[in-house]
Amino acid sequence: MRVPKAALVCVGSELLAGQVNTHQAWLSVRLRRAGFEVTGEESVPDDVTAIAAALRRALARADAVIVGGGLGPTFDDLTREAAADAFGRALVFRPGLWRTIRRRYARYHAAVPEENKRQALVVSGAEVLPNPHGSAPGQRIRVRGRRSVCLLPGPATEFYPMFERLVLPRLVRDHARGVRPAAFSVRLSGVPESVADERLDPVRARWPRARFTILASGGEVSFHAAQNETSAAAARRTAARLRREILAAVGEFAHGEGDETLEAALGRRLRARGLTLAVAESCTGGLIGARLTSVPGASEYFRGGTIAYANAVKVRALGVPRALLARRGAVSPEVAAAMARGARRAAGASVGLAVTGIAGPGGGTKAKPVGLVYAAVSGPGRRGCVRRLRIHGPREAVRSRAATAALRLAFDAAAS
Amino acid sequence: MRVPKAALVCVGSELLAGQVNTHQAWLSVRLRRAGFEVTGEESVPDDVTAIAAALRRALARADAVIVGGGLGPTFDDLTREAAADAFGRALVFRPGLWRTIRRRYARYHAAVPEENKRQALVVSGAEVLPNPHGSAPGQRIRVRGRRSVCLLPGPATEFYPMFERLVLPRLVRDHARGVRPAAFSVRLSGVPESVADERLDPVRARWPRARFTILASGGEVSFHAAQNETSAAAARRTAARLRREILAAVGEFAHGEGDETLEAALGRRLRARGLTLAVAESCTGGLIGARLTSVPGASEYFRGGTIAYANAVKVRALGVPRALLARRGAVSPEVAAAMARGARRAAGASVGLAVTGIAGPGGGTKAKPVGLVYAAVSGPGRRGCVRRLRIHGPREAVRSRAATAALRLAFDAAAS
Repeated sequence: MRVPKAALVCVGSELLAGQVNTHQAWLSVRLRRAGFEVTGEESVPDDVTAIAAALRRALARADAVIVGGGLGPTFDDLTREAAADAFGRALVFRPGLWRTIRRRYARYHAAVPEENKRQALVVSGAEVLPNPHGSAPGQRIRVRGRRSVCLLPGPATEFYPMFERLVLPRLVRDHARGVRPAAFSVRLSGVPESVADERLDPVRARWPRARFTILASGGEVSFHAAQNETSAAAARRTAARLRREILAAVGEFAHGEGDETLEAALGRRLRARGLTLAVAESCTGGLIGARLTSVPGASEYFRGGTIAYANAVKVRALGVPRALLARRGAVSPEVAAAMARGARRAAGASVGLAVTGIAGPGGGTKAKPVGLVYAAVSGPGRRGCVRRLRIHGPREAVRSRAATAALRLAFDAAAS
Repeated sequence: MRVPKAALVCVGSELLAGQVNTHQAWLSVRLRRAGFEVTGEESVPDDVTAIAAALRRALARADAVIVGGGLGPTFDDLTREAAADAFGRALVFRPGLWRTIRRRYARYHAAVPEENKRQALVVSGAEVLPNPHGSAPGQRIRVRGRRSVCLLPGPATEFYPMFERLVLPRLVRDHARGVRPAAFSVRLSGVPESVADERLDPVRARWPRARFTILASGGEVSFHAAQNETSAAAARRTAARLRREILAAVGEFAHGEGDETLEAALGRRLRARGLTLAVAESCTGGLIGARLTSVPGASEYFRGGTIAYANAVKVRALGVPRALLARRGAVSPEVAAAMARGARRAAGASVGLAVTGIAGPGGGTKAKPVGLVYAAVSGPGRRGCVRRLRIHGPREAVRSRAATAALRLAFDAAAS
């Protein structure tokens, strides 16, 4: 069956001056899950001609074009003008929309600047998409009968809810009618991307019609599979089969399905078993705690811990014996284990997790090179273990992979 | 004077399936500083036709096109073929290059797969750019006499050094001859983007020929100014004047120039004064420590600290009085101050920094809503202060802005 196609246009000179484009990845994942193929993305500056040309190009290779940015009130917000220009339409002033915008402004400001009137300009024939999170409404334009262009405000807090609640349902209705997407995603840790990739090769070979993606980042690997079907029952069957085959290939490394991060999966296990966790971080310096507490509700199982960067802190806060530090060095399996026990004891937690290592670029020796890291877990109960890691890459790669490896160690320890 | 133009093409189906594109921002900053205007970016899937079309489009609007990705050895690495196709050139097998690639492989693997021969295919007439960090060499192709297309391998560890050492010097020589870029960048904290923007308006008005960018992220604002001159002396004068005028407008909020992050700037101050720092983190959960320790050499001034997520940890590790917690609650100026004192004392540091707040989405009350955060600093000496923050946005925005506000508080406290 035909796969509906989507293309992205990201508007804003800041995207060509150092701002990281996060909309592209976010949108791609959601469009694929809904059964679309994303055929391309363009970032263009705040320039009417450039935006209009990008809109025309995108429309030439997609059923649906999603445009983010350039709908604000200032002189350099030009997406409305560019869309009118690209499709030979007029811009129409909508007094009702202007009243809504003014009411919204009145809640926060004394007076509405006259220039904001531009936000009430709508491409002739477009559907207005209300924006409860900001003043710029979105617009959906039908072009050449069967294609559509959706204009959305740039800020993530406005873009994301508008896309999920208003745009995606319309795209599915208009372009993916009869398409029943079957999708399965799994997140892996404790396995190199190349190993996961090789194990998944036979699955890919068995599914010539499916689209697969493998992504690696900071020591985690995610694998996505999607295939469009024509009935809901077939989609359910396909998704279940994909899940079964993928988990048979790499299930031992899986920590979660869908979007579940390793820290969320660990939290799920800890909560299910009524366990609590404390950390002791040396070279990761707080990264593990930061990831654990990025999960809403982490206070149910995460007690806190110690950032034991200096050796004196390892001794004072974690009770690591001074003699052990002198004899084995801070980066050693014995100190890692002592830190994990110390973290657990100090916080009264059921599991203690520790990392010590050499993140670089300096500080490495022949015996203890940059990238040498020990991760240790103490508990639950009398269990405990230490893992030695050799991580290649720059400082931030060593730190983030060390954090991932430690979280994975705790995830395994929390298995019932 | 004419501003030379550059366009980016990012190759890889993963960029249209959830992988965040970080090359775009990284390249944009470096191209601007070298005097180029970045006219656009396209992300395309691993498809010869799509890549070739993007190359032709990019070349139509730029003097130099930088292409990242698609130079690996596997069947879906198609940038070489697409470039040959786009510019009507042959692909030539270079035996010498193949020997180099084989030697490199021999160091890590038993045998070189035959398919890797593809990496020794070069677009006819192209200059080969050696890659000391991987097997895929880069290629620089002169097109239509005056334009150039540079193909680089996708992985950041190969892309970044090849761009800085080999590609950028050639781009400057070929397309920015006689251009002397004057650039100044400043990084601000403790100020909303809108306030910084307004203060910088008069500077922008005085420099009609310069290009300005303001970017905000996680509570920090960065401001870039660039103008091309025709002599080195004029460029120096312009850069000095830009610097003077920009600092006159927003200098009080500046923590660093160029790329200096807030955590690096704080480290610089602490090191200069011989001060040491310890942290106590509640709602930030380790973020502040993670940022501080992202700076190489942070162990010179950062001792570590406590992730005091549970109240019991605040009491045990930081000595926050149980009665104070009961009376004022964990999110209060008094507890923040006690945490900062406790962090300082526990680690024997000269400065203690603490954060406590409600990151959300749950846990807010009418009196203490989500986004209420207290940051406190204790020291150096007998000084100390607490700052109350009301941060709007989702959990991660509250946390990252709270971390930035705390780091700024310590930066101010460390001023001599």
